[in-house]
Amino acid sequence: MDKNQAQHQKYMQRALNLAAQPLGLVSPNPYVGAVIVKNNKIIGEGYHHQAGAPHAEINALRNAGANARDATIYVTLEPCNHHGRTGPCTQALIDAGIRCVIYALEDPNPLVSGQGLARLVAAGIKVFKIEAQECLDQSVFLNRIFIHNQQENIARPYVILKAALSLDGKLATQDYDSKWITTDAARQKAHYFRQQCDAILIGRGTLLSDNPNLTVRIDAISKSLIKNPIRIVLLSDFSEITKNLNILDTTLARTLFIYPNTTAIDADLVEMLRSKQVEMIACNLPTLKDNLDNKNKLDIKEVLNILKKLNIHSVLIEGGPAIHSAFLEAQCVDELALFYGARLIGAKNAPSLWDTSNIHALGDAPFINIIETERLDQNVFIHGLMPHIQEHDAQEHHAQEPKKGE
Amino acid sequence: MDKNQAQHQKYMQRALNLAAQPLGLVSPNPYVGAVIVKNNKIIGEGYHHQAGAPHAEINALRNAGANARDATIYVTLEPCNHHGRTGPCTQALIDAGIRCVIYALEDPNPLVSGQGLARLVAAGIKVFKIEAQECLDQSVFLNRIFIHNQQENIARPYVILKAALSLDGKLATQDYDSKWITTDAARQKAHYFRQQCDAILIGRGTLLSDNPNLTVRIDAISKSLIKNPIRIVLLSDFSEITKNLNILDTTLARTLFIYPNTTAIDADLVEMLRSKQVEMIACNLPTLKDNLDNKNKLDIKEVLNILKKLNIHSVLIEGGPAIHSAFLEAQCVDELALFYGARLIGAKNAPSLWDTSNIHALGDAPFINIIETERLDQNVFIHGLMPHIQEHDAQEHHAQEPKKGE
Repeated sequence: MDKNQAQHQKYMQRALNLAAQPLGLVSPNPYVGAVIVKNNKIIGEGYHHQAGAPHAEINALRNAGANARDATIYVTLEPCNHHGRTGPCTQALIDAGIRCVIYALEDPNPLVSGQGLARLVAAGIKVFKIEAQECLDQSVFLNRIFIHNQQENIARPYVILKAALSLDGKLATQDYDSKWITTDAARQKAHYFRQQCDAILIGRGTLLSDNPNLTVRIDAISKSLIKNPIRIVLLSDFSEITKNLNILDTTLARTLFIYPNTTAIDADLVEMLRSKQVEMIACNLPTLKDNLDNKNKLDIKEVLNILKKLNIHSVLIEGGPAIHSAFLEAQCVDELALFYGARLIGAKNAPSLWDTSNIHALGDAPFINIIETERLDQNVFIHGLMPHIQEHDAQEHHAQEPKKGE
Repeated sequence: MDKNQAQHQKYMQRALNLAAQPLGLVSPNPYVGAVIVKNNKIIGEGYHHQAGAPHAEINALRNAGANARDATIYVTLEPCNHHGRTGPCTQALIDAGIRCVIYALEDPNPLVSGQGLARLVAAGIKVFKIEAQECLDQSVFLNRIFIHNQQENIARPYVILKAALSLDGKLATQDYDSKWITTDAARQKAHYFRQQCDAILIGRGTLLSDNPNLTVRIDAISKSLIKNPIRIVLLSDFSEITKNLNILDTTLARTLFIYPNTTAIDADLVEMLRSKQVEMIACNLPTLKDNLDNKNKLDIKEVLNILKKLNIHSVLIEGGPAIHSAFLEAQCVDELALFYGARLIGAKNAPSLWDTSNIHALGDAPFINIIETERLDQNVFIHGLMPHIQEHDAQEHHAQEPKKGE
């Protein structure tokens, strides 16, 4: 890499670090950072803080002031060219007299992609894409939820499956004892995923056995920056749903029950739930069941379609085992956040991540793209992306043959 | 840490690095390295290359020559004071005029521990234990097999369980397809474990389905330094054992079949196996079975006792699932080498690491001491030590409670 490219990468890396700051707050917008450089010195910086607030370029221009004239701006995403809540960034860059724009990622929205760049070029600004692949990869990864939701005709939110497993892959013992497989270091990290998602989803078993709050609790983030996701429970029936459930406190976060429209609900119970502002959606799914004995009966695609229509762009699936299996079975998982605790549990009947799998040949087992591994105290975190399965695509993911016979 | 301690640690670290060089070749001896320092300069270095060859101190003294007089020696293990194949190192240090000995680990053999140090002190040499805990920990870890075997009345070799798992803990699909869960980067690392162990052990299922060689194949090590372990197969019966099995080529390594003495073997088959120098031990175990339907029927402790009597100090358990379960069930595993391939396999009937586990409460699940994690291409390696379970000890390994309710 020549010296110029190294400089470019350095400034773009700074812009990427800025972009990542407002953890979970920008949805449904992308994460964007911008750095303005003149005479090899940073004279302005900015990032998009949250939906509705100014874009990264605007913040960086304000930070640089009149000094921005004839400067170069590094921006992690193509500047917008449309009048949203904040006016087009392209015009602001032109007005400020920016001479050169170096960007990482084109706008993933197929309807506007390239228009911002074209507008800048038309105004006589030099426009370059960063050469460093690492920068591009980071911008794609940071905005994976945004990019997913920009796809045309996408009928579901981005789905992250989060699970705590023993080293031998068990979610609980055969008696469903799962408290606690991982230690606090892992659970702290898991809360970052909650912060980044619009919704958390659990099943009836988890609701009743754990009575969770499903709120975000991150020690390192000031309370004012915490954003609790909508809490979604898939319910086949309402027995054992009582007013003592923590999730019914909707002053902490919204709560949404999704249940089959064939389910009878006691009128008093409905009244109680309404009084607590619990949202309820009866779903046209006569066979909705969240237990393992009714595999494939949960129409996960239909549930996700409902969520998409509610403007939920990302869902964190927190289990239990039947829910995990149902989402994997439906091929509706985009990402895995697996936290391994330092235990061996064993037993054929102890639940695992995907007990209903119908995979017989190893070549048909989805091949995960592992993007990150981290040791967290006595836990191991493995972060992966699921393959985007097209029809008959699974067969292309064959195992790597060994170099020599084993 | 003061400057002196930092210097001591630096030289001891060099001695530890030297000690680790002869991967797998020193058994049944310990790994030992030595560095001789004078006027803050290394003037001699050495390590124990292999059983029967000179000890580390001797090699370092030879390397330093007459210059060793009045120097300080850093040695990772207490110098020996006994006449073995190579003469006592204490006397050699005294004769060379060494002024100061800094060591990391006392001799773990309770019969001789401290005697070397006492001999040196009696000769007027200054003797210190290194203060840096990291150095001590490294020396203990490097010599964990040696230390295990120095215990009085220990009736079995050190046991390492090696397995390749999917991210959801499966050893194979429900049809027992397991080729290949991990990729070559993981398998290369697994071969280092073979190199370090005196023996590899498999069951009948693995023998027949994989027809393995079970030899060491490490690209980075010269062929002359490869040491193939003894290959041990636990067999309940000899059906399907034919002369075409790769493991019968005993020119590559010794092969040992262990089977119940109630098992009838065809005379021609015995003749064939003998002609190939396959070793056979009929074991007084009427119920020896290597299948899951006969859980607990394999008397693993008895098998290991036989191996110990054959001077086998370490065994690498390579499966399959029934063998892994049997060793875990017998609480005869000291160490785990788990290689996770980037797959999700699923299915309740797909074999996992410990299908016969009888654990119901999470607090009874063994808590592993994770000592190392490593990303190997698209695989994740987790290296752990099993807890040393005493009677009723399991209950002390309770899960860490979370800081706040989940």
